[in-house]
Amino acid sequence: MVRALDDIRILDLTHFYNGPYSTLVLGFLGAEVIKLEPPRKGERARTIFPIPDTNRESFPFVMLNSNKKGITLDLKTPRGKELFQELVEHVDVVVENFAVGVMDKLGLGYEVLKQKNPQLVYASSTGYGRSGPYSQFPAFDPIIQAMVGVMSTTGFADGPPLKAGPPLLDMLGGIHLATGILAALHQRDRTGQGVFVETSLFEAALPPLTTQISSYIAHGGKQYRRPGNTAPNNAFVPYDCYPAQDGHVLLLCADDRRWRALCRLMGREELAKDLDFATNAARRKRTDEVNAIVSTWTQSLPKQEVMNRCGAADITCGAVKEVDELLTDPHIRERGMLQDIEHPRAGRMAVLGSPWRLNDEHPPINSPSPGLGQHNELVYGQLLGLSAGEIQTLRERGVI
Amino acid sequence: MVRALDDIRILDLTHFYNGPYSTLVLGFLGAEVIKLEPPRKGERARTIFPIPDTNRESFPFVMLNSNKKGITLDLKTPRGKELFQELVEHVDVVVENFAVGVMDKLGLGYEVLKQKNPQLVYASSTGYGRSGPYSQFPAFDPIIQAMVGVMSTTGFADGPPLKAGPPLLDMLGGIHLATGILAALHQRDRTGQGVFVETSLFEAALPPLTTQISSYIAHGGKQYRRPGNTAPNNAFVPYDCYPAQDGHVLLLCADDRRWRALCRLMGREELAKDLDFATNAARRKRTDEVNAIVSTWTQSLPKQEVMNRCGAADITCGAVKEVDELLTDPHIRERGMLQDIEHPRAGRMAVLGSPWRLNDEHPPINSPSPGLGQHNELVYGQLLGLSAGEIQTLRERGVI
Repeated sequence: MVRALDDIRILDLTHFYNGPYSTLVLGFLGAEVIKLEPPRKGERARTIFPIPDTNRESFPFVMLNSNKKGITLDLKTPRGKELFQELVEHVDVVVENFAVGVMDKLGLGYEVLKQKNPQLVYASSTGYGRSGPYSQFPAFDPIIQAMVGVMSTTGFADGPPLKAGPPLLDMLGGIHLATGILAALHQRDRTGQGVFVETSLFEAALPPLTTQISSYIAHGGKQYRRPGNTAPNNAFVPYDCYPAQDGHVLLLCADDRRWRALCRLMGREELAKDLDFATNAARRKRTDEVNAIVSTWTQSLPKQEVMNRCGAADITCGAVKEVDELLTDPHIRERGMLQDIEHPRAGRMAVLGSPWRLNDEHPPINSPSPGLGQHNELVYGQLLGLSAGEIQTLRERGVI
Repeated sequence: MVRALDDIRILDLTHFYNGPYSTLVLGFLGAEVIKLEPPRKGERARTIFPIPDTNRESFPFVMLNSNKKGITLDLKTPRGKELFQELVEHVDVVVENFAVGVMDKLGLGYEVLKQKNPQLVYASSTGYGRSGPYSQFPAFDPIIQAMVGVMSTTGFADGPPLKAGPPLLDMLGGIHLATGILAALHQRDRTGQGVFVETSLFEAALPPLTTQISSYIAHGGKQYRRPGNTAPNNAFVPYDCYPAQDGHVLLLCADDRRWRALCRLMGREELAKDLDFATNAARRKRTDEVNAIVSTWTQSLPKQEVMNRCGAADITCGAVKEVDELLTDPHIRERGMLQDIEHPRAGRMAVLGSPWRLNDEHPPINSPSPGLGQHNELVYGQLLGLSAGEIQTLRERGVI
């Protein structure tokens, strides 16, 4: 079976969430990913939510590093720099998400590496990009949420700005990094020349603000009010988070046809014909009344049942799922978005699956996340041709 | 100058935010994008935040459809179906984000199209994917925010679940769609065979929950408390949204060294040595006190000044930017993330720029978003070889 990228080898220096997500997905698509970590400590994600009784294994690390080989290398040592440049000769892609200038200071920037491998794709993801007034600022998912307008547009109008809980922008940046790498590989395949490709958390995070910027301009530059769980400017009614027997649902009617369908579901057919409720414009004037009517119905049922009945009537509705429910969600399991694996050190646990199917095939988890330096013998031995004795010496000297 | 994808032609049936973002970015990377819309009405994004005194132009449509050609075609008519299949013979990629089964019902699914073009990459993005128990449910960015756990992990512990304001998941799904297309093109280039590639909003949205799932498991399956603007489980102190003279900042100290740097900035050096505050563990016990100390300092300064001083001391801090500030932000402008263009119908307005630079070049906006059917003559005439008379007849019959 052909995998899309099974002719591509990636040397992966990334850490935390952003970069490792980019190489997780490139691995799902078939690339060979060699993850390079500092000796002894490993990358930063190994210390976040650590797994008890393991040597630097953590839940997010295991979830985000399936199907990768793991090697260690100290890029600050002269021998480490040499070995790194030898590795670069054997790969198609080097990818890193260090702060601006880190690789140049190590003497391992793109200008140096392309001397070793003129066909190299070198990909960099930083917080704000390599130029511009913010380029030197330290960044982090929630900081970018503040800077790009996610926080000021999340929350209630009478409350403070609020960040989204999950690190959405880390992953949004990570998948942009993967896209940039694939485009650069396409260019390299056509020209035979290497490519330097750059993106950043900040740049990847701005496009979703298209809605908020549009709303702001369309309303004559009036400051945007945080909408809570409603549409911007309360454009659709009903549209809110409603109570259910066992939690909440988000439910919205994008047009009057769906409102009438909802009236039938609620057993309130008389409202469908009532001019005080029949049109979105009328309902917007009676938002509190509409919300009370909808809540009366939603709280009479379990959230999944509200969603099921709405779905059957083509009304957009989602149950607000708690984190524990994700782990057992039947759709997530059937689609393989979370898959249980037997990890040799972490034990049985759920890891992320591929967000794509190509020709209806869902890429398997072929190997669990690597231990620190697990594939040193394989990579330094087979790829660079070092002897077992040389590898042992490198280990003793702390180079790997 | 070579652009990465300037050998690739895409027939783009997408609508709203998710799909059009995928082809916007593929266009920035050099692909020729032919956007196909229903005659007369156009795609749905043309009606959201409409631009006054225009024929179906809207702010988000203009922002998301630069560098695309626009054609119209009624896929429900027999002649429309014929022309569509002729177009498919001339493109590398067909991409759509209709609900599951729409293209098959039109008789224009992948199985049909690959007969016309065996090298075709066909890419589909749906709400939940084409299989699994939720596959038939209608979806929409906020619904997926509910279903994937974004809502239950956003907001305050004593408040309701909350959606992130911007349609982050639409764009997260859109960029996954672009990545899948590029991977499939790489496979096609190697095998000479077309590829069907599938992703969904739901699948693209789960990976950011890695943190919340990890936290849940690491804390023994205790239900996750919504963290407001703090770290999950209050892991770092200080870490919150603090008031500034003119708004708010998000500020966090990820370690004790940065806390000491912050103490110096605040003119509170004595706290750096005070054992009640010196370690993160100690500060977590005095979160309210720490937050009061930090707030006293932050509210004495403008938010950008707080950020500038923190940045110079390597402390992660971001000003909470309002939507109007994005439009004039010097970094956004210098990086070209928003660029003013003269749109022939919308006038002067800001549109999205490329989130990548390849070899330090930032792709230009070569043409503004197309009017409805603007390139019908060009595409049907030059690409399919129809005469001016034939095109006129198609227009009169409402086929284009």
